[in-house]
Amino acid sequence: MAQILLNSMGNDHNDYIKQQVQVKNPNLDSMEEDILYHFSLSTKTHNLPEMFGDIKFVCVGGSANRMRAFAQFMHQELKLPGNPKDIGDICEGTDRYSMYKVGPVLSISHGMGVPSISIMLHELIKLLYHAQCRDVVLFRLGTSGGVGLAPGTVVITEKAVDYSFRPQIEQVVLGKVVTRSTELDEGVADELLQCSSEIPNLPTVIGNTMCTHDFYEGQGRLDGALCSFSHEEKLEYLRKAYEAGVRNIEMESTVFAAMCRVCGLKAAVVCVTLLNRFDGDQITSPHDVLVEYQQRPQVLVSHFIKKRLGLTA
Amino acid sequence: MAQILLNSMGNDHNDYIKQQVQVKNPNLDSMEEDILYHFSLSTKTHNLPEMFGDIKFVCVGGSANRMRAFAQFMHQELKLPGNPKDIGDICEGTDRYSMYKVGPVLSISHGMGVPSISIMLHELIKLLYHAQCRDVVLFRLGTSGGVGLAPGTVVITEKAVDYSFRPQIEQVVLGKVVTRSTELDEGVADELLQCSSEIPNLPTVIGNTMCTHDFYEGQGRLDGALCSFSHEEKLEYLRKAYEAGVRNIEMESTVFAAMCRVCGLKAAVVCVTLLNRFDGDQITSPHDVLVEYQQRPQVLVSHFIKKRLGLTA
Repeated sequence: MAQILLNSMGNDHNDYIKQQVQVKNPNLDSMEEDILYHFSLSTKTHNLPEMFGDIKFVCVGGSANRMRAFAQFMHQELKLPGNPKDIGDICEGTDRYSMYKVGPVLSISHGMGVPSISIMLHELIKLLYHAQCRDVVLFRLGTSGGVGLAPGTVVITEKAVDYSFRPQIEQVVLGKVVTRSTELDEGVADELLQCSSEIPNLPTVIGNTMCTHDFYEGQGRLDGALCSFSHEEKLEYLRKAYEAGVRNIEMESTVFAAMCRVCGLKAAVVCVTLLNRFDGDQITSPHDVLVEYQQRPQVLVSHFIKKRLGLTA
Repeated sequence: MAQILLNSMGNDHNDYIKQQVQVKNPNLDSMEEDILYHFSLSTKTHNLPEMFGDIKFVCVGGSANRMRAFAQFMHQELKLPGNPKDIGDICEGTDRYSMYKVGPVLSISHGMGVPSISIMLHELIKLLYHAQCRDVVLFRLGTSGGVGLAPGTVVITEKAVDYSFRPQIEQVVLGKVVTRSTELDEGVADELLQCSSEIPNLPTVIGNTMCTHDFYEGQGRLDGALCSFSHEEKLEYLRKAYEAGVRNIEMESTVFAAMCRVCGLKAAVVCVTLLNRFDGDQITSPHDVLVEYQQRPQVLVSHFIKKRLGLTA
């Protein structure tokens, strides 16, 4: 097996070091077969190194339709041959996740919430390991509620924080709570911010992202089936979040950051805000406006990828 | 508004009391419009009482394909006119969830994990409330890992328990942890067990269901991307779970039980086991065997519904 160089992050981001994707599980190497159940893939039935060995960028997002659209967009941006409409779902044997490959880019859906993305990440990291991938960067491209930002602003996550604004996630392992750090790669975030300045009409900030375990009570929404707090209490919580550096709220960033960190994978979270939570709870913008907002993280990450591949001026 | 009679559960299950679905949020009645964003439905653009007012049974499950198959199956079982293949997805404007209506039965997908099902439940309960539904029973039809049971066994949940085997869920509300009970309706569970005895080849037990927030570390799997414990430690945890009455493990039951309970909705959880976790972690049964297993909760709940509707002998 090739030499593994971990925690070796140079200051020069173009000079990132060859790094094989690793797992943190000594059992895997002695398994005769590894069934990636929720992908409907397996080490016995699929040649993973051949299928995925050239992957350098993995982009994940909640919605299957959006991640298919992103794959088609990347196909055009990378000027690859063939019709983007023909890109097939690699996970067509299951409806848990969708997966599309476009050159060195993998685009995968992860559903909503920490548990859903965590299943996908376990199987994705095993896939990248079995496929002997190197130098992989992961991006979560998502939607979010903004905190004190105009709708449509893109937030590059500095720190993914929990409901108490701490950069950590509590993971239960065999009935015991383990706390993991959710720090993300600073270099990739800075590189993304630089990219955003090169694209017109892409308002972008770096800020903390709060990850909650539901969309209504956990995010202080007044419009769920259950609501036990007042408008003023909601605003007070959002103000505290803002003071702690939180600029948007979503539901997957902490476990994404923590699992990538444990496995030595560079990762970034790029979410667009669909509304400013100080102004309301319901997402009322017209459909076409929301569609354009959702393309913004895709445009930014596409620019990053093209720069890394030397495909921009 | 019609009289609301809550906590009025007779011992005779056929004599259940007229009960309008309620929300626990005083803000909803003063909202001009309620956008059920993740269903792509709204009180302004859709006539919810006309579309959903006759719903008596709501069946939810993780997979969109499985819940479409269940709707088609119910269409046949209820001997409704028309082609079951023509049943359309009511949520076709979004790919977050799928929803199918078959007479008085609503079939909805909820994705994987507590956060994903909780978003769906908030919007479902609001939908049933806006539609002025009465006497609704909810079922979660799922797949699970078995604890000391042969694969293919159906488990009707007695209590939904957390990683410490407590019948509760911790919900964060505005940054504070609130603990909610996850007790389910005993009458519906007993009625389901009676139904199972009337169906050949449907091995069924009542037992506790442990709900975890991930599929790998939280369930003691040795085959994830991360694993920090031994085979013996895994077995010890599963043995403790078994001693606490746990017969299967899944990822949604606690919040399903808690939210239905808070809103006065009768609810049951019916999951088939795909493997016995004492014997392994990977799901290795052939595809056709797994498909047949996944039909078992559907067959059981269909029998329950037909009995309630007076469509069986």
